[in-house]
Amino acid sequence: MIRIGVDANGGDLGVAATVPASLKALSLYDDIEITLFGDEHKIKPFLTTNERIKIVDTKVTMDMGEHDPINAVRKKKDSSLCMAMYAAKNGEVDAVVTSGPTQCVVMASHLIIKRLPQMDRVALCPIIPNYDGKPRLVLDVGANVELKKEHFGEFALFSTIAAKEVFGMENPKVGLLNIGSEPGKGREIDKEAYEYLKNIPNINFYGNVEPNEVINCPTEIVVCDGFTGNICIKTLEGTAKGMGEMLKDEIKSSIGGKIGYLFMRKNLKKFKKRMDSKEVGGAMIFGIGKPVVKAHGNSDSYAFTSAITQVYKMVKSDLINKVVASLDVKEA
Amino acid sequence: MIRIGVDANGGDLGVAATVPASLKALSLYDDIEITLFGDEHKIKPFLTTNERIKIVDTKVTMDMGEHDPINAVRKKKDSSLCMAMYAAKNGEVDAVVTSGPTQCVVMASHLIIKRLPQMDRVALCPIIPNYDGKPRLVLDVGANVELKKEHFGEFALFSTIAAKEVFGMENPKVGLLNIGSEPGKGREIDKEAYEYLKNIPNINFYGNVEPNEVINCPTEIVVCDGFTGNICIKTLEGTAKGMGEMLKDEIKSSIGGKIGYLFMRKNLKKFKKRMDSKEVGGAMIFGIGKPVVKAHGNSDSYAFTSAITQVYKMVKSDLINKVVASLDVKEA
Repeated sequence: MIRIGVDANGGDLGVAATVPASLKALSLYDDIEITLFGDEHKIKPFLTTNERIKIVDTKVTMDMGEHDPINAVRKKKDSSLCMAMYAAKNGEVDAVVTSGPTQCVVMASHLIIKRLPQMDRVALCPIIPNYDGKPRLVLDVGANVELKKEHFGEFALFSTIAAKEVFGMENPKVGLLNIGSEPGKGREIDKEAYEYLKNIPNINFYGNVEPNEVINCPTEIVVCDGFTGNICIKTLEGTAKGMGEMLKDEIKSSIGGKIGYLFMRKNLKKFKKRMDSKEVGGAMIFGIGKPVVKAHGNSDSYAFTSAITQVYKMVKSDLINKVVASLDVKEA
Repeated sequence: MIRIGVDANGGDLGVAATVPASLKALSLYDDIEITLFGDEHKIKPFLTTNERIKIVDTKVTMDMGEHDPINAVRKKKDSSLCMAMYAAKNGEVDAVVTSGPTQCVVMASHLIIKRLPQMDRVALCPIIPNYDGKPRLVLDVGANVELKKEHFGEFALFSTIAAKEVFGMENPKVGLLNIGSEPGKGREIDKEAYEYLKNIPNINFYGNVEPNEVINCPTEIVVCDGFTGNICIKTLEGTAKGMGEMLKDEIKSSIGGKIGYLFMRKNLKKFKKRMDSKEVGGAMIFGIGKPVVKAHGNSDSYAFTSAITQVYKMVKSDLINKVVASLDVKEA
């Protein structure tokens, strides 16, 4: 049995998303057991079965507005997020899914589950929907503002194994996010990372990837420091959202637009779905001792089910042990 | 008379865009004189008048694929781009417009026209179309991969004056592009730049701006180092383009979509126009002795006319002397 800890209180919708998603996951995979960490009183009305699912009661939630994530993780040990993390640390669950605040999830992973001794840094790795319908792994997007070249190497290796084991990608290519396609572009660290990645065995290094390629990406994996990655994915999210709103505005602005909408409603829905991260799961925390997936804060039940599926595959594929074995070989 | 030098050979369309745009600008502004630097043989068929317009003949063009811009600028002194820059340096024209390769334009500005003694760095400042229809100034987006805090200050001051003088913005707000809204976010340099900008007189510092806000921006100006800015605007461009293509794909994929398109054609055109940089001109090169505007490489005649208008306003408002006066006061 694969035992998954769900932070049931987390996210904008809380139990209304996390509990139905957990029930859905139970129906999809018969080798799953779920522990819901959350407010029992609120969870109960959504619960239609007690089979393979149990509740650890806590009313405390990690707020989205926490400005000091380290302090929040230290103080709110009884929050649903931290309790799920402690259960993972103590071996009571095999993995954690949460739609809690990103920096708190990164910090709780770090401080509670702890970093793998083979990894110097922890990375946040979201899945970016692409033009061709295939997901891309981008890391780090916010766990570290600055990195050394060796960290780019660790992240490239970790994500290569994850891309193969969790997403079934064959020989995934690794790109370095940079401001030009040729070698020698970017800051000193980007030049160093390029040379370093070029010479690592067991990864398929492609070279630089420019930010305008990220949604139509020539590589399955894009590595970068957390500052650069955060700038890139936040710009991508903001632009996609803003364009969606502008399109809606323009359509609504005339009768022709409204009539046209009736005809192409299905097309526009498909368009929206293509850019929707709900389809592909959440961001993975790489570098710690247990699989953790951070779903989007506004995840509905459908998106949260994708995130549970993702963490389920991370456990089932024995991802972390495979990474550890690979890093041990590298260091030996 | 305002004398504008036009790099007529530059850009994907060359004289087919630059010459009609120059004629249009002459008809719009009766205090303009234009010198076309380019292939006379190719220019002539487009030329309908000789009034206030002359040609300096050169067949040499700066290629888009130049990998070594410094070398290209040094060797191709007879290129239309460099000849326009030399004319500006020698006082034969007051400003330059080009849709040549970005890094060559930055380098030629630097090496030929030269930096203002009051400025330590040169910045590339494009205009970003926004959700509310108003332009935003973002700088630097590629002239410097790394900056010191004082350079953020120079750029903030330069762009504040440009926003007022060229775009008629009143008391424009300056934001710092960063990965979080609170002070204390980002790398060491971002924290230093925040504190520095907070304490500069003559700018209206707003605080951090997150990348997802750039197309719906709370500030008129966004400052950043050239690496970060380049990541941001390339992601924005790539996402906007990719989404446009996806939308087209989905509309074409069914009869309903095609019928719907007939009804909302106008709406979709307006949608496209809202995100189109053709409306707002090109990127300004700040920090050198003469106004230079770099239009998009794929500029058509309409877009290139906007770029000429922009540089015309930069000369007419006496932008550079105003900046110099302001920087001299600061240093005095």
